[in-house]
Amino acid sequence: MTFKEDDYILITTDERKYLKRITKDFSFNLKDRVIKYEDVVNRRHGEVVKSFCLLKPSIEDIILLGFQRKTQIIYPKDSFYIAYKLDLSKEKRMLEFGVGSGASTAVFSLLAGEVWAYEIREEFFNLSKKNWEKFGLCQNVKLENLDFLQAQIEEEFFDAAFVDVKDPIPSLEKVWKVLKPGASFASLLPTMNQVSALLREMEHIFCSIEVVEILHRHYKVNPERLRPQDTMVAHTGYLVFARKRI
Amino acid sequence: MTFKEDDYILITTDERKYLKRITKDFSFNLKDRVIKYEDVVNRRHGEVVKSFCLLKPSIEDIILLGFQRKTQIIYPKDSFYIAYKLDLSKEKRMLEFGVGSGASTAVFSLLAGEVWAYEIREEFFNLSKKNWEKFGLCQNVKLENLDFLQAQIEEEFFDAAFVDVKDPIPSLEKVWKVLKPGASFASLLPTMNQVSALLREMEHIFCSIEVVEILHRHYKVNPERLRPQDTMVAHTGYLVFARKRI
Amino acid sequence: MTFKEDDYILITTDERKYLKRITKDFSFNLKDRVIKYEDVVNRRHGEVVKSFCLLKPSIEDIILLGFQRKTQIIYPKDSFYIAYKLDLSKEKRMLEFGVGSGASTAVFSLLAGEVWAYEIREEFFNLSKKNWEKFGLCQNVKLENLDFLQAQIEEEFFDAAFVDVKDPIPSLEKVWKVLKPGASFASLLPTMNQVSALLREMEHIFCSIEVVEILHRHYKVNPERLRPQDTMVAHTGYLVFARKRI
Amino acid sequence: MTFKEDDYILITTDERKYLKRITKDFSFNLKDRVIKYEDVVNRRHGEVVKSFCLLKPSIEDIILLGFQRKTQIIYPKDSFYIAYKLDLSKEKRMLEFGVGSGASTAVFSLLAGEVWAYEIREEFFNLSKKNWEKFGLCQNVKLENLDFLQAQIEEEFFDAAFVDVKDPIPSLEKVWKVLKPGASFASLLPTMNQVSALLREMEHIFCSIEVVEILHRHYKVNPERLRPQDTMVAHTGYLVFARKRI
Repeated sequence: MTFKEDDYILITTDERKYLKRITKDFSFNLKDRVIKYEDVVNRRHGEVVKSFCLLKPSIEDIILLGFQRKTQIIYPKDSFYIAYKLDLSKEKRMLEFGVGSGASTAVFSLLAGEVWAYEIREEFFNLSKKNWEKFGLCQNVKLENLDFLQAQIEEEFFDAAFVDVKDPIPSLEKVWKVLKPGASFASLLPTMNQVSALLREMEHIFCSIEVVEILHRHYKVNPERLRPQDTMVAHTGYLVFARKRI
Repeated sequence: MTFKEDDYILITTDERKYLKRITKDFSFNLKDRVIKYEDVVNRRHGEVVKSFCLLKPSIEDIILLGFQRKTQIIYPKDSFYIAYKLDLSKEKRMLEFGVGSGASTAVFSLLAGEVWAYEIREEFFNLSKKNWEKFGLCQNVKLENLDFLQAQIEEEFFDAAFVDVKDPIPSLEKVWKVLKPGASFASLLPTMNQVSALLREMEHIFCSIEVVEILHRHYKVNPERLRPQDTMVAHTGYLVFARKRI
Repeated sequence: MTFKEDDYILITTDERKYLKRITKDFSFNLKDRVIKYEDVVNRRHGEVVKSFCLLKPSIEDIILLGFQRKTQIIYPKDSFYIAYKLDLSKEKRMLEFGVGSGASTAVFSLLAGEVWAYEIREEFFNLSKKNWEKFGLCQNVKLENLDFLQAQIEEEFFDAAFVDVKDPIPSLEKVWKVLKPGASFASLLPTMNQVSALLREMEHIFCSIEVVEILHRHYKVNPERLRPQDTMVAHTGYLVFARKRI
Repeated sequence: MTFKEDDYILITTDERKYLKRITKDFSFNLKDRVIKYEDVVNRRHGEVVKSFCLLKPSIEDIILLGFQRKTQIIYPKDSFYIAYKLDLSKEKRMLEFGVGSGASTAVFSLLAGEVWAYEIREEFFNLSKKNWEKFGLCQNVKLENLDFLQAQIEEEFFDAAFVDVKDPIPSLEKVWKVLKPGASFASLLPTMNQVSALLREMEHIFCSIEVVEILHRHYKVNPERLRPQDTMVAHTGYLVFARKRI
């Protein structure tokens, strides 16, 4: 429960969090307060040093602050909800394609038994690998730099699928085929037009279809002046869930 | 992947879901459509019978439709988010008290290594036990019919705590003590007054405090007339998260 | 400031409001509390009788509780916002078509100089007339039982238009023509598909186009237990606003 | 319907709006597109010049873009809703105190017969005056640079009151006194603590109390990619409404 060299450390103030790695030449500087290697090594988790609270980063901190990204990621709040709707558990084998920066995979990997992930763009394939390796994540993920449509997968193979590509429709039939009967499907789509188009294709081959959006409203943490923050995220995407019917 | 006697089965229409158990005298009746034991046994998951789609229930279905409740439960959408903010994983030992109908525990149990749960009211202690046994859940949960304040627990024992009692303040100091340094804390409170009161007590012994509310908006699943449903849940509770500082 | 025979009266409890007319045989009965003609006549506004607070109804009360409706009305909260975005004032001449039960017209009439309203369905034409006459409203409204597309209106005649029909597209060109250059346009549409379709037609003949939805969250009025009500209206419609470009 | 010297003009692009006054040396410059005096004078409202659409500013544009402000203003969307809940009309005399930059008064003035406004801070008294004069607004407003608590007002004088001061409680009794029986009260409060405190004082001298918050979600105006904007305003304030009971 103490910080050691090479550990990741979360340095928190009342307003923000910073994720750093403890190296010999570690130095963190904020508004005239400086902390160095010798200020953090051997400190216990939760200790306060120069009014910074030092914490072990959570999976949320790692994804939001530690992952390098090249596009909009799927936020852990959304991917945890997706994991829940996909009914993930350690007995389940999951399909994901459109891996992006690997943020959602990192969440699914925690909950599923194994994840088979496909990413066609080499740049993102490499980025995900790098993000996961940096934090020792996703050891139960089999990632391929391959178009899902080219992948050789036997039918009725997966318990759950998450599709995060610009247009999920061309691959929908194959997704359906590789899902076990009754298995769970999820997709996240930014626009209503995409949702309409996808629903049209799903109606006759899926059942228990749901469309939902999630809004989070954060409050200012002042007990004498309790009120929401001034702005909030208004949209990350529409979530579509369904079960394979046969 | 076929339904057998004694299985739980989820019977879905476009509008609703029904959770039933398949017994010899099983009979489900909706608007002139009747399905019986012989209509479902040996059917594959995902099959459609008399326009009902037959599915294996997910953990969400089990909690929402299968659990008996005597009060407002914590919805899986909230408890999955709590689990995420508590950074649960199989290496973590979690504390929960104020177990109620056992709905949130059933979610935490999926994600945590073990859950130590305390419920002072015998009626709810029995109800939770019954709900879990009925569906074979929560085998890594140690539930006691005991006031948490009376429990003998060594200090710095838990990686995470979730408190769901009317007034978390009298037990806050003990919660703090039994948490490991830097460990995660969560509570769900229905009113702003409770949030204010709790924040006042937390300010100096916790860090990284957050208050958030989650809103879900469900859409009508009609691709040609896409629009939100007419009404939505406006409030389940304010979620408070923090990390133990020392 | 006292209630007289034939006045409308708003009878309020902590939970609900009732709109009634004071007639000789007036009698209002709720949970064993009865108030009659002699309990209310000559009472001052704001007086409390048998724990009912007696009030003069506002325009909101009249529309929500006094108007007879045959379909979903446009709520005053939406029509007031529309009036604001249409920049209504006593110097402005407004067009409305698709009058329905006359609820939105009653609001626009308060703010605009005059309203020219068209309702093709005789049933709704009569209903609106009746609702307005009952409460002495809309004396600056010229209502015709006519399809707007058949109406003889000179070009560049209106300062503002509100269109509330199932499909505004067939009449869009004519609406554009009868609006003055730079004049304001508004429509309320229940589905995203309708919004998409309308925007496609508007892009080149309108400018300053906006699409917005309004959510209201009501709180339980208990100072010691302040919290939102359990449910809320999730959707009344998408509001589209624009200005005529030439 | 043409722009003349000294007119205010609203210059709009797809993304933004700019409010300017047309002077001899007028020049507006955006991304290499320049428009000058001779480009706008004698143009009709709604004309497009160098792909800018030229419009007469609405009351919304004037308040949001033309008013100088020194603090957070009350947005017209909120003040229009307040006007609606206060049941303003040309027969009504209204009280407002805590005038700030005069933004809400400019809206109430449109709807009420007369507004008696009190602003204790000389700086804001002058600012409001200046904002109104610049655009010829608020001619039915009687503004005094005075603490409302010091104002000599007879009892039962106002039909409606809007209170926008940090702490409305010290003046609540006087507000109550100067309202007519059954008259309407409104206040806007940023924090839940203030709402709780105010409700405690109001319970026995007001009836028909409501607390509500309004959320607006704006969409990107692209018919082929319809979706909400990324962020939204999460909070402007809690609105409290009530009627005076006697």
